[in-house]
Parts: sequence; structure tokens; C-alpha cells
Amino acid sequence: MTLVIQKFGGTAVGDPDRIREVAEHVSRTLRRGDQIVMVVSAMGKETDELLRLADDVSSTHPGREMDMLITAGERKATALMCMALHDLGIPADSFTGSQAGFLTDTTHTNAKILEVRPERVQEALDAGRVAVVGGSQGVSTDNDVTFLGRGGSDTTAVALAHALNADVCELYTDVTGVFTTDPRVVPSARKMNTVSFEELLEMTATGCPKPAMRSVEYARTHGVRLHVRSAFTWQEGTWVTEEEPNMEQAIVSAVTHDVSEAKMTISGVPDKPGVAAQVFRSLADRDINVDLIVQNVSDHGVTDISFTIPHDDIPHVEEITNQIVEELQAQGVSVDPQIARVSVIGAGMRTNPGVAAKMFEVLASEEINIAMISTSAIRISCVVQESRAEDAVKALHAAFELSVS
Amino acid sequence: MTLVIQKFGGTAVGDPDRIREVAEHVSRTLRRGDQIVMVVSAMGKETDELLRLADDVSSTHPGREMDMLITAGERKATALMCMALHDLGIPADSFTGSQAGFLTDTTHTNAKILEVRPERVQEALDAGRVAVVGGSQGVSTDNDVTFLGRGGSDTTAVALAHALNADVCELYTDVTGVFTTDPRVVPSARKMNTVSFEELLEMTATGCPKPAMRSVEYARTHGVRLHVRSAFTWQEGTWVTEEEPNMEQAIVSAVTHDVSEAKMTISGVPDKPGVAAQVFRSLADRDINVDLIVQNVSDHGVTDISFTIPHDDIPHVEEITNQIVEELQAQGVSVDPQIARVSVIGAGMRTNPGVAAKMFEVLASEEINIAMISTSAIRISCVVQESRAEDAVKALHAAFELSVS
Repeated sequence: MTLVIQKFGGTAVGDPDRIREVAEHVSRTLRRGDQIVMVVSAMGKETDELLRLADDVSSTHPGREMDMLITAGERKATALMCMALHDLGIPADSFTGSQAGFLTDTTHTNAKILEVRPERVQEALDAGRVAVVGGSQGVSTDNDVTFLGRGGSDTTAVALAHALNADVCELYTDVTGVFTTDPRVVPSARKMNTVSFEELLEMTATGCPKPAMRSVEYARTHGVRLHVRSAFTWQEGTWVTEEEPNMEQAIVSAVTHDVSEAKMTISGVPDKPGVAAQVFRSLADRDINVDLIVQNVSDHGVTDISFTIPHDDIPHVEEITNQIVEELQAQGVSVDPQIARVSVIGAGMRTNPGVAAKMFEVLASEEINIAMISTSAIRISCVVQESRAEDAVKALHAAFELSVS
Repeated sequence: MTLVIQKFGGTAVGDPDRIREVAEHVSRTLRRGDQIVMVVSAMGKETDELLRLADDVSSTHPGREMDMLITAGERKATALMCMALHDLGIPADSFTGSQAGFLTDTTHTNAKILEVRPERVQEALDAGRVAVVGGSQGVSTDNDVTFLGRGGSDTTAVALAHALNADVCELYTDVTGVFTTDPRVVPSARKMNTVSFEELLEMTATGCPKPAMRSVEYARTHGVRLHVRSAFTWQEGTWVTEEEPNMEQAIVSAVTHDVSEAKMTISGVPDKPGVAAQVFRSLADRDINVDLIVQNVSDHGVTDISFTIPHDDIPHVEEITNQIVEELQAQGVSVDPQIARVSVIGAGMRTNPGVAAKMFEVLASEEINIAMISTSAIRISCVVQESRAEDAVKALHAAFELSVS
């Protein structure tokens, strides 16, 4: 018998009609003889509404209480989904994160999973029932309700797939799979039939919004087969697999872009050992998620250090970097929020030199200036002006012939 | 130090402004040096909205899932209340029914409390924090989420008051206390400064909507001091107390009415021993809550049996009584849904004969026909035509001089 984990995102269960349609789909899967564990997110925009309610009530948002509040959304969705299944004659039980055995640390609003002990879920399966688990939630070592963060339902699904030794983890979303680039920017973007974990990780790290990067990491680490697909068309989506040695690899598989970051530059930094360490240790100690880092060539004993950070962190990081400038007697700090990172990703890059050169040529021919460059074994990223990001994506998607199947 | 349980109903926490206002009130109580445990209901009409959502999704409403769904409402309210308290600098922690130690039976949607072990609530108090507990919820002996039923937050508050040995349990609502009759019917109805448990029990059993009868029973059994008061004016309300032997008792304290019941009559029943038992055993076995029962004087070996039942149960009871008519070879069954029960209540009745006679005289002078009569030691109820119920209440309230303080 095949055990399938099916995760449904907020839009997939956005209203009573959608919930009933998803229940119908589960019914079809069951008729195939499969066992099913469902993971559901909060309905539609409910999480946003709960956050707005918290803002209306208080300017103080203690993490423990935010988690108690937000997890109410998934709780509602699991109960309603079970009712819809019962209506079709399918026995089903809802489980909170705690009931499903998700033990987490105490980092409220963004808790990490420590252990998954899905005994009650397994018992439901053994009794021939569908288990419906609330996404993105657990119980902490302090016995408090915890939330795994936005997009955490994907991680719940993958972690359950691993803990229950499921055959496949299906992530149902509002797009039909993983695309060679954002179809809103390039309408001829192609749905990929397969993508490797490594490629998808690089894609989600550089702007591909779904699935959540954390769930892809978890799936790769534990060898969970992922299938990213649509809850609206129900057609086959994108399979995420281990790279096979003999796989005929496209040199470039996808183009991504990300406009959520800003560029900060500390200029006139003394070029001596330990300076970079001092800068980034200060930021890391304050939980600032620094991404792309570039240090210019030293000129007369001073250098410039640039890096990207999330927009939301700008005020906080400015405060910290101003202190650093003082300590290091550097020249100053500048911020450019109007940037975008454009990346090309492909497992075939490892054995095909010249991708970087071609990328730079394409951007040059479009007269798009490159502000920063960063590379990994299977990715090249360029920071460009935000206003030119979509032009860059279109040109690169065309130049690497990604629309052609 | 005084320990106060403060319970806030749905209208009291109906929107973000109300939640902040309640937090301000708690802050004032704390400045007096009291310790506080709050019990909150779901915001405004949220429970109704969740029930409507369940109807939209499914015609099947399994109890376990209904409880998972509905308790999401109180969960939200507790978290938001804690945030509002934090905003005022007051440390506070939310607790679900399970976290607050409410162990219940497995009767979903209407669970009974088996035991209250409020260790975590006590720890919060010991740490100088306000504990905010979700009303009307617990965890069953099967480890499932349970709901104590509509109005169950009053019971949660009283049960916590008992378990924590609190000095007083304050039930904050949208009226300023317990009234001599429904102020919507008789605008000169008087707020009672005190009422005895027994009187209040009779009142809530015969149409007085607040507080929930179950919570009054629990409070009487365990000697919990109750104070029913307003979350809008914050002024003193009605104290519910043990009757003191020397208490100067009003002969009649209150007039209530209830239009939620229907009258059923089984006519031509053979008048022999065991017949009434057979009728009411059949109804009890099907969980029909039969209230007032009257059996007429026997005439030629046959008699009529009348009783009242909730409107909702009419179809179900008709089915059962038709069977009974067949078994007993009785004449038939008739239903009158257009009835009302009007009651006068007063602890002083025990020692003052003549109240029943006066009640019947008042109704007669208004030309209101009495269909059924039932009495207890401190209550007399008459079933009248529904259309004359308010006239009866007005006349009785005036005749027993309840408007005069």
C-alpha cells in the first residue's frame, strides 16, 4: 500500500467550496488504494487577518501569544476538512501539531522541529482513517504552542513524510509546478517535469517562492520524494529528485529574481585581517540574515564591503553598521534599496564553463549594469538595478533557451 | 492577597477596542493588589460564524471536529487579551482548556468536567502573572479537544474559582446584573443587589438567560461566591450568595418567562400503574429533556398526559410519542408550540402561603388562561398562550411590587 502525504496551501482551502473540492480529490486518491495523511494551512488570507487583529489590539506581540493566536487558523482548517471528508463517507480525524507529535524548540513564531513522534497519526492510518494535520505548528519543550513560521506547512508535510516513511510528499499549491522562471514575467516560462533538490534549493534561495526552502532542505537531507503540483487543475506537476549521475543535465535550468533585498556598503574600511569577521560577527550576533557579500580590491590600504539584507532589516542594520564604522574608523555607510538579484541556476554548470561569461554578455547587450556578483557551483547571481530586473530575466530566459521543452 | 476570577463573555471582548478596555479594567484591579485569573469567551459572534462555516462545508458535523473548530474562537481571544495586557506592561500568559488542566469526559460539543488541575495557572499566579484561560474547553480522557457547550465559559470560571480556592468569581456580561424580570419586557425591572443560589437556579431554569444554569449549580455545590456584573459600566452588579437563615426574604423575588418550549399532550391514555413511567422512560432513553409534566384527573379509566419539550425536539418527540400511542392504545398526540411558561420565584414562598393563589388571581384578572401549572418550594410556573406571556410578566411584576426597591 502506498502512503501519500498531501499538503494543501491556504489558497487550496481558501473557502468552503475549495475545502469540499480538496475532499473530493482525497476521495479519488483513496479509491486508488492509497493511505493519506493531509497537512493543511490556514484558509486563504486568515493568517494575515489574525496578524492584523493582533496589530489592532496591541503594539506588543509576545511570541508565545502570537503562536497561540496564529495556530487557530490551521486548527479551523483541519476540523472543517475532516467534516468535508465525513460528508463523503470518509472517516477522518484532525490533529494539532502537538497531537501529531511535533516537538519543537521554544523559538516562538519561528520554531524549529526537534522531533516528530506521529503515533496518533499512525494509529489513525492503521484504523483506516485519514489523518488531517495542522500545518506549521507544534508544541515546545516548555509545553507551549509553537508556530514554525510562514510557509511552515511545507516543512510539516515533509517532516511527516520522513517520520512515517511515506512514499511521496505532494505539495498542492496554486501553481501547476516549478517553472523555469516566474511566469508573470516571462509568459512562455516552462513547467519543469523534474528538478533536482540542489537546483530547487538554489532557486528557492534566490526568489522562487514555492515550495518553502526549509522544506526542500529537509526533504533533501532525509531523501523525501517531493511532488509540487496544483490543487486547481490536479494535473501532474514537478517531481523533485536526487540528481542521477547519468542525468542529461541542462546547462541552465532556471532563472530567478528577488527584489526583497537591499544593498548596504561600508566604504573606506581599513584593509587588515579580521575586519570582515568583525563586521559580520556583529550582524550575526543580532540575527541579521546577511546574504550576498562582496569585498572590493584594496586600494591604498582601504576597501569597500557590500552585502545584501532583507528590506525590513534596514533600520536595524543601519544602526549596527554606524557603530561599526565608528569602531573601525571607516568612511561611511550607504544603502540602496532599489536593487534586484537575478540568478541563473543549473546542475550542468559544474561541467560546462562559460555560463558566467554568457550571462554577463547577455546583461551587457541589454545595457544592464551589474553591481555585485556571487556564484556557487550551480548558480550565478548578479545584483542589478531593480527597474531592470524583469528585462534581465526575460533576456536570460531567452538566451538560455528555457522556453523550449 | 485576594484571588479574583474574572470571566468576560463574547460581547465584552467583541472587538479590539473592547479587548483593550477589558485589559484596562484588569489593570485597575491589579493596582488594588489582587491576583487575577481571566476566563474569556470567543469574540462577539465568532462561535456562530464558525458554526455557519461548518454548515457551509459539510452536512456532517462529527463532535470531535466541531470541538476542534469551535475552540479556535476562545484560543484567539485569550492570545489577543494577553497581547493587550502586555501592551499595558502586565505580564500575562494564555492557556487553552487543556493547558489549564480541564480534564473532561468524551461527550463532544457538550463535555462534562471530570477534574480541574490548574497547576500551570497556579504557577503563572505565583510568578506574578495574569493567567488568561480559554472558556468552555478542555481535553478528554481520549486526549481530544472538547467543548463544554454554549455558555460553558461561566462554568470554566466557576470551576477554576473552586479549584484555585479563589475569593470571588466575577462574571462580566452585557447586562448590569440579575434583574427582577426581563428589562426588555418591563423597563422598570430592578437590578437585584443579592440573590440566593436557589432563587437564581430556579430563575435560570425558567428563562433568565444569564449566567448559565450549569455554572450556578457548580457554584452552589462548591460554595463559590459569584458576582454577576457589567463589562460596560463596570459598576457593582448582583452578588449570588448562600441564603442566610436570618435574611429578610422577599416573598417573591423575580418573574421569569420562557418561550422556547412546546406543549405535547398524549390523550386517552389508560389510567393504570406504570403508564407514566413507560412514557417518560421512552423519552429519557432518547435524551429528550422533558420539563414540566401534568397528568389530568382520570375520567372513565383514561387520562391525558401533557409535558413541555424544547421546540427543536418536536419532530423527534412526535415520532416517539406516536409509537407510544400505538403501544398503549391511547387516543392520540397533539402539539402546541405557541406556549410560554411564566414563573414567579422567591425564597420567601416557603413560609408564605397564598402566593400561588395570588398569581392565579392576577392572571385571571388579565383574562389569561392557564394551561398547565407546576410548583417547587420556591417557584410557581404557569403555562400560558405565548401571545399573552408579556402581559402576564408585566401584571405579575407589578402585583408583587418588584419595581419598588
